[in-house]
Amino acid sequence: MKLFRFDDGRIGVQSGNESYDITDALGIDTQMWPPVQMVQVIRQFSESAPAVLDHPKTRRIDLASVRLLVPIEWPNKLLALPVNYVAHGAEMNSANRADLNGFFLKANSSLSGPNDAVVLPDLPGREIHHECELGIVIGKGGRNISRADAYDHIFGYACLIDMVVRGKEERVMRKSYDTFCPFGPWIVTADEVPDPANLQTRLWVNDELRQDSNTKDLIVDIPGMIELISRVATLYPGDIIAAGTPAGVGPVQRGDRMRIAIDHVGEMTLDVR
Amino acid sequence: MKLFRFDDGRIGVQSGNESYDITDALGIDTQMWPPVQMVQVIRQFSESAPAVLDHPKTRRIDLASVRLLVPIEWPNKLLALPVNYVAHGAEMNSANRADLNGFFLKANSSLSGPNDAVVLPDLPGREIHHECELGIVIGKGGRNISRADAYDHIFGYACLIDMVVRGKEERVMRKSYDTFCPFGPWIVTADEVPDPANLQTRLWVNDELRQDSNTKDLIVDIPGMIELISRVATLYPGDIIAAGTPAGVGPVQRGDRMRIAIDHVGEMTLDVR
Repeated sequence: MKLFRFDDGRIGVQSGNESYDITDALGIDTQMWPPVQMVQVIRQFSESAPAVLDHPKTRRIDLASVRLLVPIEWPNKLLALPVNYVAHGAEMNSANRADLNGFFLKANSSLSGPNDAVVLPDLPGREIHHECELGIVIGKGGRNISRADAYDHIFGYACLIDMVVRGKEERVMRKSYDTFCPFGPWIVTADEVPDPANLQTRLWVNDELRQDSNTKDLIVDIPGMIELISRVATLYPGDIIAAGTPAGVGPVQRGDRMRIAIDHVGEMTLDVR
Repeated sequence: MKLFRFDDGRIGVQSGNESYDITDALGIDTQMWPPVQMVQVIRQFSESAPAVLDHPKTRRIDLASVRLLVPIEWPNKLLALPVNYVAHGAEMNSANRADLNGFFLKANSSLSGPNDAVVLPDLPGREIHHECELGIVIGKGGRNISRADAYDHIFGYACLIDMVVRGKEERVMRKSYDTFCPFGPWIVTADEVPDPANLQTRLWVNDELRQDSNTKDLIVDIPGMIELISRVATLYPGDIIAAGTPAGVGPVQRGDRMRIAIDHVGEMTLDVR
């Protein structure tokens, strides 16, 4: 199943080859602010998936005719792992490593969707890099989650690009510009991803393949991330973890197009402005 | 006016010497999850303060007989300035400075209230420090807010303690343990704070005065923070900025009691467990 947000904040689901608008069936108010609707849906589905496809208010839609939005806009937190692939650590000459150093955060307000351009700030002389990552979405929250239980807490996966201005200021700030976290195009539920520890993740800039790696090479693997983070902070439904980027990061310019694709998860193409 | 959350998530206001429960007058659902009710109230009051005190569903309460909760539980973001007082930079031997390095984030899930204990993680050999800070609450959101307009975007102020495990891991992680951001005891609206750039902020541990400083000594002043952050990220109603800590940070142990007091804002006393 794929869960997505579309048009003016409606919630949709793709099951098999059919797509459905489940907004009214779930009684969702698309106008509610702040926009935590998808966080509510994820919690609801994680507790017991509602029998929503047969609901009289569910209607079939054509996925190709809707405008997809960022699936999650206002989570409790957007977490990220620093150097989590050995080859990326080498290219950055970094002694930092996720297994030694833990996690950091990006601002929720940096999240943007599959149809939003990435807007580069005007910082002459600065490189702004793409980092291709697997996004992990928490379903069932918790604290002190063990490795053995970690996968039970994952709702699904999405493509995520962690944009960053290179430089010496606070990294959190350099990664938190608006539109610096393209995320989507939907959330694929965990049952549709046969082996999250063996997903090829690729990123192209203008048809040039820049990053091409596999989640089997992660330093801190997926259960390890959940264990590491939840030893510190309570995880909530809808929390997003950016798994870390492999080697091949590099600069983008205005006018470029980035494409990210992850096996079994999806792909999205983004304009850089 | 002071805005507060109490008991099972009700919203209260103190005006003059009287306190009121305005939950039903504002039509707030205390059971809604995630808990963004106060974020909604702040936005509503920032757009046009509702005539809530005369509402038939408003009822007078005795502030001393309610249990205060953390006023904001699920903001868009919880921002913090690194070294923002010269004397704190000196005591930390840090070349980092907020005016050069910008902001970072703490996890929303680290927020805790005036009646919650600070729970120390079990990290033998590690010091866990208090940092006494002014908390600034955004009212009207925005991007690229100028210094001249900055105060128009501030809803109010609160006491904030930025707890941190000293060490070499990611600072964001070391500051994001659950209960590592006591915040409250309420939000004092900006009109009740005559000069935010001249507030004495003090923190005691077991009656020993550890930190005693004034916001006039901030490196990046309050309008500067709003300008700096909003150049990067859109600010939303309810966003919290931890202004940075003055000198005098130091370790706490289980069994200690911390007291923070800020002129015109309030005070709170917290157990360390």
